[in-house]
Amino acid sequence: MIQCPRGTRDFLPNEMERRRHYENILRRTAGIFGFREIATPIFEETELFTTRSGPNILNEIYSFKDKGDRDIALRPELTAPVMRMFVNGMSNEPRPLKLFYFGQCFRYERPQSGRYREFFQFGAELIGNANAETDAEAIALAASMIKSLGLLDYKIRMGHIGVLRGLLATAGIPRDGMAEVLQKLDKKLYDEARPMLEAAGADSDAIDLIFKITGTVGGKEVLDMLDLVPDEAASYLRELTEILEAMNVRNVEIDLGVVRGLDYYTGMVFEAEAPSLGAEKQICGGGSYSLSELFGGEKVFSTGFAIGFDRILLAMEKEGQTFEGRGVDAYVVPVSDDVRTDAAKIVSMLRSGGVSADIDIMRRKMAKALKHASSVNAKYAIIVGKNELAEDSVTVRDMTTGDQRTVRLNDLASMFN
Amino acid sequence: MIQCPRGTRDFLPNEMERRRHYENILRRTAGIFGFREIATPIFEETELFTTRSGPNILNEIYSFKDKGDRDIALRPELTAPVMRMFVNGMSNEPRPLKLFYFGQCFRYERPQSGRYREFFQFGAELIGNANAETDAEAIALAASMIKSLGLLDYKIRMGHIGVLRGLLATAGIPRDGMAEVLQKLDKKLYDEARPMLEAAGADSDAIDLIFKITGTVGGKEVLDMLDLVPDEAASYLRELTEILEAMNVRNVEIDLGVVRGLDYYTGMVFEAEAPSLGAEKQICGGGSYSLSELFGGEKVFSTGFAIGFDRILLAMEKEGQTFEGRGVDAYVVPVSDDVRTDAAKIVSMLRSGGVSADIDIMRRKMAKALKHASSVNAKYAIIVGKNELAEDSVTVRDMTTGDQRTVRLNDLASMFN
Repeated sequence: MIQCPRGTRDFLPNEMERRRHYENILRRTAGIFGFREIATPIFEETELFTTRSGPNILNEIYSFKDKGDRDIALRPELTAPVMRMFVNGMSNEPRPLKLFYFGQCFRYERPQSGRYREFFQFGAELIGNANAETDAEAIALAASMIKSLGLLDYKIRMGHIGVLRGLLATAGIPRDGMAEVLQKLDKKLYDEARPMLEAAGADSDAIDLIFKITGTVGGKEVLDMLDLVPDEAASYLRELTEILEAMNVRNVEIDLGVVRGLDYYTGMVFEAEAPSLGAEKQICGGGSYSLSELFGGEKVFSTGFAIGFDRILLAMEKEGQTFEGRGVDAYVVPVSDDVRTDAAKIVSMLRSGGVSADIDIMRRKMAKALKHASSVNAKYAIIVGKNELAEDSVTVRDMTTGDQRTVRLNDLASMFN
Repeated sequence: MIQCPRGTRDFLPNEMERRRHYENILRRTAGIFGFREIATPIFEETELFTTRSGPNILNEIYSFKDKGDRDIALRPELTAPVMRMFVNGMSNEPRPLKLFYFGQCFRYERPQSGRYREFFQFGAELIGNANAETDAEAIALAASMIKSLGLLDYKIRMGHIGVLRGLLATAGIPRDGMAEVLQKLDKKLYDEARPMLEAAGADSDAIDLIFKITGTVGGKEVLDMLDLVPDEAASYLRELTEILEAMNVRNVEIDLGVVRGLDYYTGMVFEAEAPSLGAEKQICGGGSYSLSELFGGEKVFSTGFAIGFDRILLAMEKEGQTFEGRGVDAYVVPVSDDVRTDAAKIVSMLRSGGVSADIDIMRRKMAKALKHASSVNAKYAIIVGKNELAEDSVTVRDMTTGDQRTVRLNDLASMFN
């Protein structure tokens, strides 16, 4: 028996209805913020992703040659495709561009709870500007999306990549050696970071300060305490925090240890997490960056983020949130073969009026047909019998209470308004 | 500059809004018919598609080995994945199962008008039953979907694979040689079909009859004229036509030449076409089939179809249908730097109330900010100035007429109800 490939999933009707419901909430929230949806292909030239993330990405993506011997890869993320699209076809549009996307991404990694080889990301990119209002707009959207789904327990941690970069530069780490150290600091692997810093000539005071900064977390009072951080980043974060307060964005704290893995971030970086998820608790990540110049465009400042859709749904489950599907309004049951044509007319009449209606097509006996009506969560069964039809009527059964009454065909559609 | 791969597309905001609009109409229509959405992975084991379509499919699909040396392929269609999913996880569900899907499919072929390497299909499968009501339900849904999009000029052609199979058997063509002949007849390549039929020993009367049947098109009166076709298929099509009439399905004609390419069809087959598209006019195809036993399940009769979403949108364009995007309700413009925080409060207040609202984050001068408000199709500009704020008010500019008036902050949100 052929199964779906390892790390991928089939979505059955109940789960799919739930996913579309929450997907549409996210889409509506993005629209309310003035972001507009775009879409890019499922695969891209492999070079696009190695340009963004370095050659190591090849170890964890689905890359292959097509029949024309081109190197292509299933997209592992959507920031690079969106920036490619921007460079190709949107660079002359009025700025800022406020774009969002929703779709599958692919990584070849070991499947585990909340981690799949085919996973779904919802993300936004605000292209063409770099200031605190821009970053606030992105964080406010991320926060509003998470909140709109109804997730209760989450936290947004916001930092500034300039803080650690400044301290690393002062400690003598060259620009092209920073990424490696930052990755260790991101994971709080101090024992591995220390020898790197020492090798670059950093003294133990500088190292202690760097480690202290990565553990600095709190409200904006954190910035007052710290005259240790470069002035510019501190005042930037202060300004950003004030705008977020004005925008009534909750659950945000400053965490100077937020680093993000990638070299192209230019300033503010942020992550959101849902503690209910345990070790794999990150549900969102982003920051301000500059990437378009790598793809042949002019240098353009942007801010963006991506939400892990699968993981945030899992967090909602862990919080005990349930979702009720809608079922159909009506299930039409012809009592005998000689009324099948009339039953077909009735179901079509209901559907034309926008009523969701199903019909028995298996020529079942009444009891079995009503059982099927239950299994498709029908609110009402419309029982079509010869005697009732002679008086232009049908029997309507409330599937919750079991009550039955006679309804004239002319009044049937209006029952569902 | 990296481009999107040949035969794939980026969808910009206006086009994407249009696509989502029509996608949702199709989704709603399927829901009204009691069909429920499912989703399967973008790629599958390659064997799934060769099992359904034969090894030749390998010439036109994206197939490759993953890092675990598995043969996988980007899905070229969705009937096989849905039936795999049915066998894996839904075979114990109450029947009939009424499922629909929407998603990307992939074929490595020469791109041309309405044909892409990444294309979108909307389809439905009705699993677990074989009778005229089942087929009527599928055709009625396809017709209702096409109609719900607003396409004006289209035609549904419906036939029965049993008619030609019966005549071919009578003419002496063995069962396993039929597919090849049927493919020629599907394309009306009579000159190529004739030697095949002659080689199998068919006489010229039998051959003439077969060719005549493939050209037989019309209303149900066609079936009366034809006592040439096997009784069973003719009476089946008559019954089906009567149900479709009761369901008020228009634009359907009988075309005994509809063959479809594949071996697994068992009875009714149908296609829909939009003449405005010229040579590539087919927008929908389907029929009744049996496929699950090939994937290790029990034999189950089903009826399904797929609509070419890209092509039907193209047909609507050719008919001159236009789509207007919605734009945002409000665009908030802070007049000076000292009201930026207040402007942030105002835009957040509007958004909390469900009003789609954008805000100037580029610190533009008034004239330029209003120009941007136009470019994002804002209905109103909300101009936030210090003097007005002192009286808890803002200036609201109607972006269509240019009229301006003062509105109190407390009344602002209700403007948009």
